[in-house]
Amino acid sequence: MRKLQLLLFFLATIAATCQGLDEVDHGRNYNIYPLRLKSGSGGHHIPGLTCSSWRLGVETHNIIEWITVPEECEGYVGNYMLGHQYREDSEAVTIHAFRYAKSLNLTGDGKDTWVFDIDETTLSNLPYYAKHGFGVNAYNSTSFNEWVNLGVAPALPSSLKLYWKLLNLGIKIVFLTGRPEDQTNITVANLRNVRFTKWEKLILKDSSFSGKTAVVYKSTQRKKLEDEGYRIVGNIGDQWSDILGTNTGNRTFKLPDPMYYLS
Amino acid sequence: MRKLQLLLFFLATIAATCQGLDEVDHGRNYNIYPLRLKSGSGGHHIPGLTCSSWRLGVETHNIIEWITVPEECEGYVGNYMLGHQYREDSEAVTIHAFRYAKSLNLTGDGKDTWVFDIDETTLSNLPYYAKHGFGVNAYNSTSFNEWVNLGVAPALPSSLKLYWKLLNLGIKIVFLTGRPEDQTNITVANLRNVRFTKWEKLILKDSSFSGKTAVVYKSTQRKKLEDEGYRIVGNIGDQWSDILGTNTGNRTFKLPDPMYYLS
Repeated sequence: MRKLQLLLFFLATIAATCQGLDEVDHGRNYNIYPLRLKSGSGGHHIPGLTCSSWRLGVETHNIIEWITVPEECEGYVGNYMLGHQYREDSEAVTIHAFRYAKSLNLTGDGKDTWVFDIDETTLSNLPYYAKHGFGVNAYNSTSFNEWVNLGVAPALPSSLKLYWKLLNLGIKIVFLTGRPEDQTNITVANLRNVRFTKWEKLILKDSSFSGKTAVVYKSTQRKKLEDEGYRIVGNIGDQWSDILGTNTGNRTFKLPDPMYYLS
Repeated sequence: MRKLQLLLFFLATIAATCQGLDEVDHGRNYNIYPLRLKSGSGGHHIPGLTCSSWRLGVETHNIIEWITVPEECEGYVGNYMLGHQYREDSEAVTIHAFRYAKSLNLTGDGKDTWVFDIDETTLSNLPYYAKHGFGVNAYNSTSFNEWVNLGVAPALPSSLKLYWKLLNLGIKIVFLTGRPEDQTNITVANLRNVRFTKWEKLILKDSSFSGKTAVVYKSTQRKKLEDEGYRIVGNIGDQWSDILGTNTGNRTFKLPDPMYYLS
């Protein structure tokens, strides 16, 4: 019964996703919001600080290696993610990313590359997290992989816009994700369904990296890219582990994500 | 006449600073707030984004190399700096900095060191910026140096607490600032006046670094420290240029500062 409900929810999500590009709304119009009452708007205190200060601490890499969102901040994070601010904060990042990209003297030799992370950068798992406490609940790989394998994650609208603008500048796109290789097919299908239709490479995590941190895995893969002659002119992700380490690219961009932390 | 007003203002500031540690309030009780009406609280739009998203973009190093705060955001930044949020955001950083410091296995050999930037990290120039548009006005070295040379900058209260807690853990303090060497005496006096009374080194910028970026200058000085055997266990500043570059230390902390950008 619970599975049926979940399925119906996802079908509604797919339906909502099948709109024109301008209407892609990254969750705002989905039936998620009414599921949760408004509560907490930065005023809730977790030991010593407010949820708003906690979020800024997370986004600025002052607060690291946290396991779950503080329970007191579920309402705050939920409202942030489902409200305007998350979208506006994301848009601010991608606007500046594109300004930077436009300012580049691109060579036109087909080697200028932009690295995109996938989860919470390209595809949004917000429909999943909205059902699972917005990061308050401990990560559950079984239920999360069930969600991923549905292949219905919506695009992050500001990232989708950036992606097409970068392609139009002649920049190649490389997707570099911590998703395991056995999710290749569903990831390809999901990306295509939400209009990420072209890429130079799509790199998923193979088993040789199991147990390695995202920083190590992603640095290694970026080094390979550079060894192959690609110039990483830009690199965007929602986790600091997407943009720290080596071979990080000429400039990095950090999208907001107060729901989880990957090292 | 204007000078007299300014002097009176600073004398009031000094008077306000001469309080017990618990009452140090980093501007909240000064006579700055009533000078400016409340206006704009994140809702003002600058081209394409809100002031709140602009600030997050600045703090996360997505928006870089900006010269002045967007005019539309003066009210927003002013209210942020003079209200509770700036203090709470700063406190969140220093709470996590101290948690980290406590978790260290310190050797007790006197080489464990924490690097503090000075302006907007240790000493606050908020009384100055409150009179000069909160970063909307272009930097004016003449009037800024006049302010610095008064030696009346208040302590950032959360940084002062962190400083004493680190000293109590047996960690040495190094102040590393972009202030020029000819401001050594006034800086020493100002630090002591607001209860920063002990340090291993106080490094000001000598003329050999003129024209060099803060990243280059500070990286060079940190390398010297490490060459001398100091272990930089922590490094805190309000600018990304305080914590990027080389020899950045075992962990870095970024305090909020939406008023200016130094590369």
